[in-house]
Amino acid sequence: MNNSLGEMFRITSFGESHGDCIGIVVDGCPAGLPIGVEDIQREVDKRKSSRGRPLATGRRETDKVEVFSGVFNGFTTGAPICLAIWNRDIDSSAYEKIKNVLRPGHADFTAYEKYGGFNDWRGSGRFSGRITAGFVMAGAVAKKLLSTIGIEVTAHAVEIGGIKAAPPQDVESIRERMAGNEVSCADPAAAVKMIEAIKAASRDGDSLGGIIEARAEGLPVGLGEPVFDTIEGCLAKAYLAIPAVKGVEFGAGFAAARLKGSEDNDAFDVKSGRVITTTNNHGGILGGISSGMPLVARLAVKPTPSIGKLQRSVDLDSLEPTTVAVGGRHDTCIVPRAVAVAEAMTAVVLADFALRHGKIERVLR
Amino acid sequence: MNNSLGEMFRITSFGESHGDCIGIVVDGCPAGLPIGVEDIQREVDKRKSSRGRPLATGRRETDKVEVFSGVFNGFTTGAPICLAIWNRDIDSSAYEKIKNVLRPGHADFTAYEKYGGFNDWRGSGRFSGRITAGFVMAGAVAKKLLSTIGIEVTAHAVEIGGIKAAPPQDVESIRERMAGNEVSCADPAAAVKMIEAIKAASRDGDSLGGIIEARAEGLPVGLGEPVFDTIEGCLAKAYLAIPAVKGVEFGAGFAAARLKGSEDNDAFDVKSGRVITTTNNHGGILGGISSGMPLVARLAVKPTPSIGKLQRSVDLDSLEPTTVAVGGRHDTCIVPRAVAVAEAMTAVVLADFALRHGKIERVLR
Amino acid sequence: MNNSLGEMFRITSFGESHGDCIGIVVDGCPAGLPIGVEDIQREVDKRKSSRGRPLATGRRETDKVEVFSGVFNGFTTGAPICLAIWNRDIDSSAYEKIKNVLRPGHADFTAYEKYGGFNDWRGSGRFSGRITAGFVMAGAVAKKLLSTIGIEVTAHAVEIGGIKAAPPQDVESIRERMAGNEVSCADPAAAVKMIEAIKAASRDGDSLGGIIEARAEGLPVGLGEPVFDTIEGCLAKAYLAIPAVKGVEFGAGFAAARLKGSEDNDAFDVKSGRVITTTNNHGGILGGISSGMPLVARLAVKPTPSIGKLQRSVDLDSLEPTTVAVGGRHDTCIVPRAVAVAEAMTAVVLADFALRHGKIERVLR
Amino acid sequence: MNNSLGEMFRITSFGESHGDCIGIVVDGCPAGLPIGVEDIQREVDKRKSSRGRPLATGRRETDKVEVFSGVFNGFTTGAPICLAIWNRDIDSSAYEKIKNVLRPGHADFTAYEKYGGFNDWRGSGRFSGRITAGFVMAGAVAKKLLSTIGIEVTAHAVEIGGIKAAPPQDVESIRERMAGNEVSCADPAAAVKMIEAIKAASRDGDSLGGIIEARAEGLPVGLGEPVFDTIEGCLAKAYLAIPAVKGVEFGAGFAAARLKGSEDNDAFDVKSGRVITTTNNHGGILGGISSGMPLVARLAVKPTPSIGKLQRSVDLDSLEPTTVAVGGRHDTCIVPRAVAVAEAMTAVVLADFALRHGKIERVLR
Repeated sequence: MNNSLGEMFRITSFGESHGDCIGIVVDGCPAGLPIGVEDIQREVDKRKSSRGRPLATGRRETDKVEVFSGVFNGFTTGAPICLAIWNRDIDSSAYEKIKNVLRPGHADFTAYEKYGGFNDWRGSGRFSGRITAGFVMAGAVAKKLLSTIGIEVTAHAVEIGGIKAAPPQDVESIRERMAGNEVSCADPAAAVKMIEAIKAASRDGDSLGGIIEARAEGLPVGLGEPVFDTIEGCLAKAYLAIPAVKGVEFGAGFAAARLKGSEDNDAFDVKSGRVITTTNNHGGILGGISSGMPLVARLAVKPTPSIGKLQRSVDLDSLEPTTVAVGGRHDTCIVPRAVAVAEAMTAVVLADFALRHGKIERVLR
Repeated sequence: MNNSLGEMFRITSFGESHGDCIGIVVDGCPAGLPIGVEDIQREVDKRKSSRGRPLATGRRETDKVEVFSGVFNGFTTGAPICLAIWNRDIDSSAYEKIKNVLRPGHADFTAYEKYGGFNDWRGSGRFSGRITAGFVMAGAVAKKLLSTIGIEVTAHAVEIGGIKAAPPQDVESIRERMAGNEVSCADPAAAVKMIEAIKAASRDGDSLGGIIEARAEGLPVGLGEPVFDTIEGCLAKAYLAIPAVKGVEFGAGFAAARLKGSEDNDAFDVKSGRVITTTNNHGGILGGISSGMPLVARLAVKPTPSIGKLQRSVDLDSLEPTTVAVGGRHDTCIVPRAVAVAEAMTAVVLADFALRHGKIERVLR
Repeated sequence: MNNSLGEMFRITSFGESHGDCIGIVVDGCPAGLPIGVEDIQREVDKRKSSRGRPLATGRRETDKVEVFSGVFNGFTTGAPICLAIWNRDIDSSAYEKIKNVLRPGHADFTAYEKYGGFNDWRGSGRFSGRITAGFVMAGAVAKKLLSTIGIEVTAHAVEIGGIKAAPPQDVESIRERMAGNEVSCADPAAAVKMIEAIKAASRDGDSLGGIIEARAEGLPVGLGEPVFDTIEGCLAKAYLAIPAVKGVEFGAGFAAARLKGSEDNDAFDVKSGRVITTTNNHGGILGGISSGMPLVARLAVKPTPSIGKLQRSVDLDSLEPTTVAVGGRHDTCIVPRAVAVAEAMTAVVLADFALRHGKIERVLR
Repeated sequence: MNNSLGEMFRITSFGESHGDCIGIVVDGCPAGLPIGVEDIQREVDKRKSSRGRPLATGRRETDKVEVFSGVFNGFTTGAPICLAIWNRDIDSSAYEKIKNVLRPGHADFTAYEKYGGFNDWRGSGRFSGRITAGFVMAGAVAKKLLSTIGIEVTAHAVEIGGIKAAPPQDVESIRERMAGNEVSCADPAAAVKMIEAIKAASRDGDSLGGIIEARAEGLPVGLGEPVFDTIEGCLAKAYLAIPAVKGVEFGAGFAAARLKGSEDNDAFDVKSGRVITTTNNHGGILGGISSGMPLVARLAVKPTPSIGKLQRSVDLDSLEPTTVAVGGRHDTCIVPRAVAVAEAMTAVVLADFALRHGKIERVLR
């Protein structure tokens, strides 16, 4: 029951998978930001299933963005921006058949218990990945806002089904290379294998997970509000709102736990009059505050829980064991589409921090 | 500049390493909880350096807990509970010498930039691990509160310096075994090696990191407030406020990214009339909501940045390269002491969720 | 830039007077509340100008409520409820003409300065009373929720243009009588005079203000979260978000400042085994907490700033003095329509307190 | 159970009347503000009873301020500032005698019900006016902060026991004149009568209320965050946290409800190149946003509920009617001392708005 995130740049999510629409209210965006529906549409299109994504859901939505409020004459007004896409291609029949059977790995059981069975179960309702279209709309505004102070956010797939991409190079080459394949991976050779793996999993009625890296370049030093609103903490909270994300790490992350201090510590140096570190095990964050080095986070995405294979489950009505094979229209691997969502959430959180730390003016001119 | 955490069970942290005291205000604890200073002291003692921790800081503090408000006649009153320990054994001399030299891996640079050089640098000031004593005091209240509805929180070290403990068994054996050694590890054989590794690192003027597992048993189904206040998200945010934590995962976590759906999905079953899962890759959380299975989280702790070895750095005054060997009194590995902090933060977050979901009455009798 | 209100029952407002729509997101409403669009429409109709209100705005909107999310099969689902009405009868021409002239008593100047001239000025944009239609939609949900625990909220006009209604009697007669006239006043004789006064003011190209009383019956003892979230404080904050409200008082209010303690103190007594007070100068609130006696608040509404009379003003472009006579379509007195808004905000705040204090279950059955 | 107020300048109150101490944590104050304990002591002294206040409580506390954290070398550090005074002159005997008897006009009944009888009843515990000493400490920091951008806050008594002061002139004369008497009234002649009235009430075993005006000069245009965080709303919420305040109005306030639009509207004009209004019925706030004109608020303070006269009441144990004459040490009229509190809360709220709107830098130099 908390669908708002952020302090000064605050988003409020609404809508269900098979309801009327998916929407988001963005509150706190400064006035004077030039923005058009096309800026938002471009980002929303990145997570669409119809872009040739291998084995993505067969649901075909136009996902045409509408701007209900907060933009006037091509600029933000300082008022809350309500953005929405309508749900059109709704087919709840596959869900109707199994609505009393708990799908393993899904929120069916916990949602049923928490909301007393009143939750909208059609297409997973509020627990569908489709609600992240709203996150992406908010992220589009955030990205535009961050660009005014030179911050660029990028996410890409670094691992799918156990296939690792070669370590990313500079951000320009990441962007260029990830655009060349359907899994948003900056290593073309790995991308080919990933696509094969997804197709193979699909043939088996199975699914795959993976790892997404989110980055931000151009951050000023000083973003983050310790002790509790660290950059890491607020990003992790935002990332873990993306369905299927089960882990988050920053910089060297879990690998840092196996390093010695002399290996993990990033030496300081001076370059062009600015303090930098010579390595970036800290992922651009020290003490919960941005250091000016590139921010680097990684998100662990579990395999899509909806699979065609027969699984053991329980019937909620009878409380008897049963089995289930999940139909409906699902992605075999959501990682490629979740890349756009990870990017969006990174932007939303950083926009909030930039405003809180006074790095963005309340009125842009 | 945000030192409060939580909605209904909200903690507010204050104090610096070499200031007058370390404190915490706990707001929102229901009235009628029986609690004494000894309940809080017991938890605080768990993170003390003087408990024979191998190579823990030489700073010797009594850490005697004082209850300033909110408790009357042995019960909480419903008013904010202010808890504090005084700083007594202060020696800022080692810091004075290097106060203009950025210690690699520390928040010196980011804090200096963010607070314009006005931050209290003595003993790392607000960025010292010592402020987590406040977290532990709050955790003591939260643990007591959770115990009224049968929730038990436990943390233990599962890896130090690359040495992995054998997978934990039931929670009773974890508690019993971890109490038998100074690194809070439930695998006695691994504990011996961990202690040796810490001692070796200390001899080298180096430091170690590790991984902590935090667990909660007895959770009711339904805690968590999606879409943004998921259990994972709120716990991760709380964990990442602990200095040196750089990654968090739940259930199978990052390993889940390499599983297939058919492997990762936990089958549902019925036991004693209750729905359970036969495995726990989901770590007790589905859709951001507790499933009733044990909650399992892991925290990656980087090696202590303060090391005796000579490191490359920069002098803030001259902006010239320099070197630094960090003196002061530091732990070679903070994992053993951070176990108590991870446990505390788990309790604080779960207490908040239990109150938000109406699982704990506003007045206890 | 803060368009959200409430902790557990939280509303988020969006939309402008001449934009696409006026909307509200209600987050935190428990699952299982039976509600239909007609429940919300009924409340929205109460603030419509077309109900024969004397000299209300000529703008004719159908104000047909749409439920975008959060309701399924006639019950709330626990998900955010997005409600909206579309703006249809838009005519910005009167505003176009004077868009650079500051209308006295309006937010033109402050909004221009705060939002750098990017604010939507059409029909006062975000500062129009029209956005309170969103408040009323949220209030409809809150009223329905409160009714499940026997709380009834009522507002009525007690003074217009200096004409005072006779002191209100019991709440049933208030409701019955106020429904009999177009100014929502429970004193029929006063209502006649109020209507005459409004007509006279209109003839003069002038406007009137007044006072609204908001009441709640059936409150349990114990709502309110001191020290900062008192019932008075949270209600006042909500009331002062209604355009034109410039003062709020509770119980005897400002008159209490002139009483002696022996006159103002309400004596305690016991009735049917319950503690009551024999008088109600405290307006149902002691120490910021509900006492179980009827809650009584009064809101001072200033006269509509839009008047046809010529007024001195300033041209924003030239910064030269000028004069302005405000055209457009405005109410001569907004008090009758603001009654529904005051009632709605009372309900929204009390629903939040009832949830926070655990008086309403998270799932209704 | 909510003892925090503010978004970016957030205060957290703790402590009880007869507990160890009264304290406040100020979070979010920018780094680099020069402040000493004497700046805070000066404000705290203004609300002390020992300053010759007529018939103020006989309790004699030194109220010596201690700064526990957040200040280093004479400047704020950006870390939370914890401030406290110790309770020394505690005598709970008068309360012990009547602890089961509900004092009319007090929070005894509502607190007992809300906190299940676990609340600290000594000296009214958490509901004592003494906790406002914490508000004043926070206000001292806020005032110092506001002074860096030229905002000056002033409060004074404008009515006591029905005796009205002549309308205030310029703020300098208000300050000068109110300092000349013990009731903080800017009208010397009225002050004499007020003091007489207080003495007479005391002789009768009775008490008086009154009205406080709070003002702020030097406000920039644009503070306030509509639609819900208006300046009026946030100030009213803060004022109503002061015990005994039962009403708040801004500018012409309740009187505006009796004016016509042509009378109430403040004409715009230009002076020295700045837009001003020729009158100030709007009290410096239009659309919930500061207009640059002086902010003017008035607080209705009810008479002290503790009176020596015999009153009808109820015994909580037996639920039988009884009578009570309240002993203990109380002010006959709290208005003179509450002036300092109203001033403090005004400063706290405005500091928050100034930070939110970017008018104060995060680091002061």
